[in-house]
Amino acid sequence: MAYRSLAKNSKSFLGPTAPRKRFDSPSELTRLSKSTIVNERVGSRCHPLTDLRQNKLLYNYEEEIKGCFDQIVPVLKKVSELQHEKDFVKRAQQLSLDELGYELPNHYLDKAWVCPLDMRAIFAWCTFRSHQEASSRFFSSDPLEGSELSEQAQEFQTFLDKCGFHLLDVSPCADGRLAHSIAYALRIPFSAVRRRSHAGALFDVENTVNRWVKTEHRRYRESLPNAASVPTRYLKVVVYHFSSVDPSHQGCAAHGSDDALAASAGLQRLLDFREAVENSFCCGASVDLLLIGLDTDTDAIRIHVPSSDGNIALGKWISALELYQETISLTLNRAEKRIEEAIKDNVSGDVDPGMTNFVSRLIINNFSQIDYVKEFYSGSYPDAGHAERFIGVGIGFKEVHLRNLTYFAHLDTVEEGSPDLDVGVKIFKGLNVSRELPIPIVIRFDYSGMVPGAKERAKADCIRVNDAIFMRYRDLVDDGLLHTLMTIRDRDQKGPAEVVGSSLDPSVQEAH
Amino acid sequence: MAYRSLAKNSKSFLGPTAPRKRFDSPSELTRLSKSTIVNERVGSRCHPLTDLRQNKLLYNYEEEIKGCFDQIVPVLKKVSELQHEKDFVKRAQQLSLDELGYELPNHYLDKAWVCPLDMRAIFAWCTFRSHQEASSRFFSSDPLEGSELSEQAQEFQTFLDKCGFHLLDVSPCADGRLAHSIAYALRIPFSAVRRRSHAGALFDVENTVNRWVKTEHRRYRESLPNAASVPTRYLKVVVYHFSSVDPSHQGCAAHGSDDALAASAGLQRLLDFREAVENSFCCGASVDLLLIGLDTDTDAIRIHVPSSDGNIALGKWISALELYQETISLTLNRAEKRIEEAIKDNVSGDVDPGMTNFVSRLIINNFSQIDYVKEFYSGSYPDAGHAERFIGVGIGFKEVHLRNLTYFAHLDTVEEGSPDLDVGVKIFKGLNVSRELPIPIVIRFDYSGMVPGAKERAKADCIRVNDAIFMRYRDLVDDGLLHTLMTIRDRDQKGPAEVVGSSLDPSVQEAH
Repeated sequence: MAYRSLAKNSKSFLGPTAPRKRFDSPSELTRLSKSTIVNERVGSRCHPLTDLRQNKLLYNYEEEIKGCFDQIVPVLKKVSELQHEKDFVKRAQQLSLDELGYELPNHYLDKAWVCPLDMRAIFAWCTFRSHQEASSRFFSSDPLEGSELSEQAQEFQTFLDKCGFHLLDVSPCADGRLAHSIAYALRIPFSAVRRRSHAGALFDVENTVNRWVKTEHRRYRESLPNAASVPTRYLKVVVYHFSSVDPSHQGCAAHGSDDALAASAGLQRLLDFREAVENSFCCGASVDLLLIGLDTDTDAIRIHVPSSDGNIALGKWISALELYQETISLTLNRAEKRIEEAIKDNVSGDVDPGMTNFVSRLIINNFSQIDYVKEFYSGSYPDAGHAERFIGVGIGFKEVHLRNLTYFAHLDTVEEGSPDLDVGVKIFKGLNVSRELPIPIVIRFDYSGMVPGAKERAKADCIRVNDAIFMRYRDLVDDGLLHTLMTIRDRDQKGPAEVVGSSLDPSVQEAH
Repeated sequence: MAYRSLAKNSKSFLGPTAPRKRFDSPSELTRLSKSTIVNERVGSRCHPLTDLRQNKLLYNYEEEIKGCFDQIVPVLKKVSELQHEKDFVKRAQQLSLDELGYELPNHYLDKAWVCPLDMRAIFAWCTFRSHQEASSRFFSSDPLEGSELSEQAQEFQTFLDKCGFHLLDVSPCADGRLAHSIAYALRIPFSAVRRRSHAGALFDVENTVNRWVKTEHRRYRESLPNAASVPTRYLKVVVYHFSSVDPSHQGCAAHGSDDALAASAGLQRLLDFREAVENSFCCGASVDLLLIGLDTDTDAIRIHVPSSDGNIALGKWISALELYQETISLTLNRAEKRIEEAIKDNVSGDVDPGMTNFVSRLIINNFSQIDYVKEFYSGSYPDAGHAERFIGVGIGFKEVHLRNLTYFAHLDTVEEGSPDLDVGVKIFKGLNVSRELPIPIVIRFDYSGMVPGAKERAKADCIRVNDAIFMRYRDLVDDGLLHTLMTIRDRDQKGPAEVVGSSLDPSVQEAH
């Protein structure tokens, strides 16, 4: 299935592959925007099933948070111009307060009279500050309406249960272009899902079996989310990705931008997980699996629907973009019916009604995202490649749900996670170091406040990982081209993350 | 509770501390061995409850296995003398075959004509070979009679169940002088216990909670070892240690040879574990705890018996050595009764009958070990300090049950486990490097053969840890003063460990 070479020649385009971008030329977009409005939503050519209110909410959030990060460089350029002027510190602070909303660190500004400002450090400091503010806001005001207490999360949990699933566990690729998979592309309330990002979506089988055991134990002991006797399943989902605009360069780096390879490796990992559960436990223990592909240009998904006997075909999927186009002119009911038909048509054999409902909902949710990208990004993101603002390292980051904001290296130790982290550092060498800017790394360890000593161990984990990063990337650190912020968070509480140290702290700087 | 300073001055010896060694002067030993035989076991002054057959079995095993390691240096000295003689390779191989039972690696011997033999490498090679042979034998012939299929293990499991415990989980210190805690000092069939060694016996709370969850899940799902509805408990035991011969130098290094500190740190970790379980799970979830001290000179234990409401007093314990002396002249029944009384007398409040039976059995088992040390080591080991033969690193080593054979660093990553590993390397700098001999490190990762890909991941784990060790101790590696053997083992099978690589392989040597 050499899709890569097929994709280069549209004339020999015979088999199914990634959905191709449809809205990439301005002329076509103009033509589309001028075409007949086929539904009753005046002023936007969007799908009748699209949630316009949610789209607006999500866009405002994305624009606001990314805006905070993207203002840093322009403001710091102005600060740089001021550095030899009289009253520099005062003027710089006023400027920063006016334009960024916070003051800059005095222990860097104070040195401007004697040596050039360490703009790298100040840039990293501002990036960390922006992250902290976004993080705190996320936990205090639930801007994505997806917290455990939200109506959305409760409704989704009920829906999931009706579909026959007691836990939804999704592994997207660690790539920043999938960081918004849950809250945006799939429109799932973040608290109703377990997310574990890994390079190439290649999640850890042993860890996932442990999570399965914990889930079952809770069902047995506490009947949460339901009793173990209820015949619902643990649903494990892999989200691999590809690029319809530039399939051979902007696909998944972990799989050499080969979408067929990304899909088959993801499926194999899913099958390994199922076999591990089936072989390790008695009494018919098993799990349900789902394989999803995401086009990082349009955010349109494709779903390899599993048959009721658990088979998943790599070469068969339903494309949300094709269904979007096919149903955009239909009534709500007819559109929904058509989606259900498509699900059944794309599987050899039967599909469980619960799985049909679940897949159907994901497709409909994704219609909103297709319209989101159409409306706000002209149908295809301008940042087809990487454009992350920082690297997130460790365990946690429940609050990160924006595309291209964070490259995430989910790890306990740098020793085990270095392949993922190296990819992140390589990406940021291109994004930041090439512009003489440092790589900002936020370290996070979530802990359970109910476990004695867990907070202290989380702090110690931060310091250990920080030290390992400094050891591994010593050249970058020595040149001021890599900075870290250490944070911890009590996962049993609703509160924000807590900063426990940074390479930019005054004491750390003095020690250098 | 400054026991360290108290211990230096026997006149100010007011409070309770480690049992002091009673048999450390030859004259006293002579006196004892000549004293009246008070029981009917002619020819040995031992306790009526001692299992002499088992003592003989265990001693033969210890002597044989350690003998294999201890023959290496004398034989290699002879090989060294031959290295410039005619037919050196042939003669060396014959000598080795005759005295060690195996041939030496030809790729080292072949170079003798052109450069001095790399005796360090050959020494490490022989150490690894001795370990491999002992390991294979352990899994093939069950020399300690403690495998799952053994009568002893089945009887012990039934006993444990009667005492009200469904799982016994013991954390001794990683110190090699406690590597025999299970099979020798406590006389527990190795397969009937979960052992996790850590420096200072400071086990990982989060990992142990995970093990608790897995145990509960199995009880719920498979009713193994019993159904979750049966009101038995998970028993977590900490074994700290001290030295009665040289309390302020040969105690636990992790606690500065301060036995009061070792005990209180162990107890705190136990309490943290119980609190973690109680806080994290509903429905009266809890665990039982037991704190044991081991005198590394005499192998006599002291047990801080918990009251039925779960209290453990640091300052109260029963001493197996004192009870041994007190009951050596009694009949079996009266001795057993006296032990039970002592258990009850040493607790404020009630003791659960199950706990009384369990502690009583440990005390009686330990009588055998006290006699073992009396009979074969004149009451106190000649190697009061460290004398380990190799360092074991990773997850596994179910077959290591000999005192001072292995310093064990139980770890997933060098990054997390480096404090433990550094202690081991420091010990071996004293033991081996000071004699120009290398530090032999055996890396082990057990895996579950029922989990797809687990074997390959175990191999990858070996390589990762091997690389991290080489990075951390580069100076030693460069001087040929640290060598590694990588091994994996399928924990679902009865078979031996499998070697997957070594720093002594011909290809590795060529790459240097």
